[in-house]
Amino acid sequence: MDLVDRLLDGDRRALARAITLTENEDPLAGDLAAAVFPHTGRARTLGVTGPPGVGKSTVVDGLVHLERATGRRVGVVAVDPTSPFSGGAILGDRIRMRRGASDPGVFIRSLATRGHLGGLSWHTGSVVRLLDAAGFDTILIETVGAGQAEVEIMRYAVTTIVILVPGLGDEVQAIKAGILEIADILVVNKADREGADGLVRELEATLELGAGSAASWKPPVLKTVATADRGLDAVLAAAHDHYLYLESSGSLQARLERELNAEVRGLVRDLAGRAALDWARSAGAWDSALSEVLARRTDPRSAAAGLVTRFLGRVQRKSRP
Amino acid sequence: MDLVDRLLDGDRRALARAITLTENEDPLAGDLAAAVFPHTGRARTLGVTGPPGVGKSTVVDGLVHLERATGRRVGVVAVDPTSPFSGGAILGDRIRMRRGASDPGVFIRSLATRGHLGGLSWHTGSVVRLLDAAGFDTILIETVGAGQAEVEIMRYAVTTIVILVPGLGDEVQAIKAGILEIADILVVNKADREGADGLVRELEATLELGAGSAASWKPPVLKTVATADRGLDAVLAAAHDHYLYLESSGSLQARLERELNAEVRGLVRDLAGRAALDWARSAGAWDSALSEVLARRTDPRSAAAGLVTRFLGRVQRKSRP
Repeated sequence: MDLVDRLLDGDRRALARAITLTENEDPLAGDLAAAVFPHTGRARTLGVTGPPGVGKSTVVDGLVHLERATGRRVGVVAVDPTSPFSGGAILGDRIRMRRGASDPGVFIRSLATRGHLGGLSWHTGSVVRLLDAAGFDTILIETVGAGQAEVEIMRYAVTTIVILVPGLGDEVQAIKAGILEIADILVVNKADREGADGLVRELEATLELGAGSAASWKPPVLKTVATADRGLDAVLAAAHDHYLYLESSGSLQARLERELNAEVRGLVRDLAGRAALDWARSAGAWDSALSEVLARRTDPRSAAAGLVTRFLGRVQRKSRP
Repeated sequence: MDLVDRLLDGDRRALARAITLTENEDPLAGDLAAAVFPHTGRARTLGVTGPPGVGKSTVVDGLVHLERATGRRVGVVAVDPTSPFSGGAILGDRIRMRRGASDPGVFIRSLATRGHLGGLSWHTGSVVRLLDAAGFDTILIETVGAGQAEVEIMRYAVTTIVILVPGLGDEVQAIKAGILEIADILVVNKADREGADGLVRELEATLELGAGSAASWKPPVLKTVATADRGLDAVLAAAHDHYLYLESSGSLQARLERELNAEVRGLVRDLAGRAALDWARSAGAWDSALSEVLARRTDPRSAAAGLVTRFLGRVQRKSRP
């Protein structure tokens, strides 16, 4: 495939086209993913997440700038799990105004939900691999929002940076509990605001409580003022330390294996599920099962179990001589 | 099942026990869901969502209070998709301090992610049905956070109230685009703050842009100061109007059908997927497929497709005489 060759050569237009095919779930996207997969696994991936309004984009811009200064080529995937209907138009607009948008060593792309969350997560992984195969050395994965979606998306990052700011409201306590668990590095951005030191202490205390064995990585809590480019070099240094830690402890390989395992598992479920649904619809079994549910005579789970049992049984019957 | 009878009689302890079984995915939970399903479909469901820090809990507390004043029994399901690891402990603490927590006509329960998002969504639907079967007239579904998770969870609400406040940061623009699409009623809370009228106008303009046919529901934008119980009666009145609109236009039935359709579809995928995975693991096909992926010789999607094809083929072979 000519597109694959050009992409592997680092051609930006080929890369852009490949990403679009992937986002649109074009039939070619699967072949493309299969063709580039053997050429992946070299790039370093870095995730940046946190609740809305903490300045993630500014931090990412600053990190891109610092990485470029060392000559590394940088890809940015900005994932927006919050706008299933906006099609990412807003995020896209913001991206065009970004620093580095005209640097040939930087490639920025936004991804938005177009339907189910699982789809977005799969797209993210695929796009990271396309950038990897196209020769980008560092890939930054940025997500807008906060929640389970980030956890799914951050699977594709080897190092996850969680950003918070002083003065977040009440409910952020709940969010914090979740994202602390995925954070390899914690950043308190807008650290010139009141309450920054208090938040740092609070986060360190929380991490202390959750600390595991003495041998494991202890997430640092770092202060930044991203709008003034302050503290970002320390963040990048911490990311480098984390990578070296993972490599030397053997966790890097274990982490990659866990990710790929989860990905194949998810795809098996998807494909098997789709086969069952296709059968149910074409055989007319779907309509009768659903009308039982609508009449509240059968509950949804029993109806689904009945359909799947019949699907697997039908495969058996069909194969009889 | 004795538990079912007691639950249908409105016994609170039976209800609490049933919810715990559901949350823990106890083997009994499926039977329980099947047994109560024919007794569901009576309660009115109301969803309350929006980004962190907008005062959702205070709004919900106020709505509970108003509903109780008319004699209706009210269930509250507070769903926390943001803390996959905290087990909802933080949300649980906050709930104990709530107004109405000691009123026998009010039942409040929190649900947190314990693994995949789909699980949480299924739990929410099941718990809403348990409350419905136990005779609660109004069920409020509250979610912390903002994003795709809410969209999934709000499927279970007939009327969705989206809350915003003046002065939210930059990225909230992105969130707004998504949640506007699911909002039946928009609330600008903390409306005594500067910028409230501007936000109302902005939201009305956005709604105007997205407005469809003249016949369809036009989401009202309402101002509240929930901490002072101001404006909540108008929110409840709007929710009532929305319900009547859905009923008279036939959309209520269509909405319920769409939800149940999506639920059965999701369950078919889950069950078929699980059958395929169970086979792959027990047959040893899993390990060999995964090692091909880890060596980057086969990409994840091709590996998954191969496993599913073999799974369906194996069912065939097994059935041969």
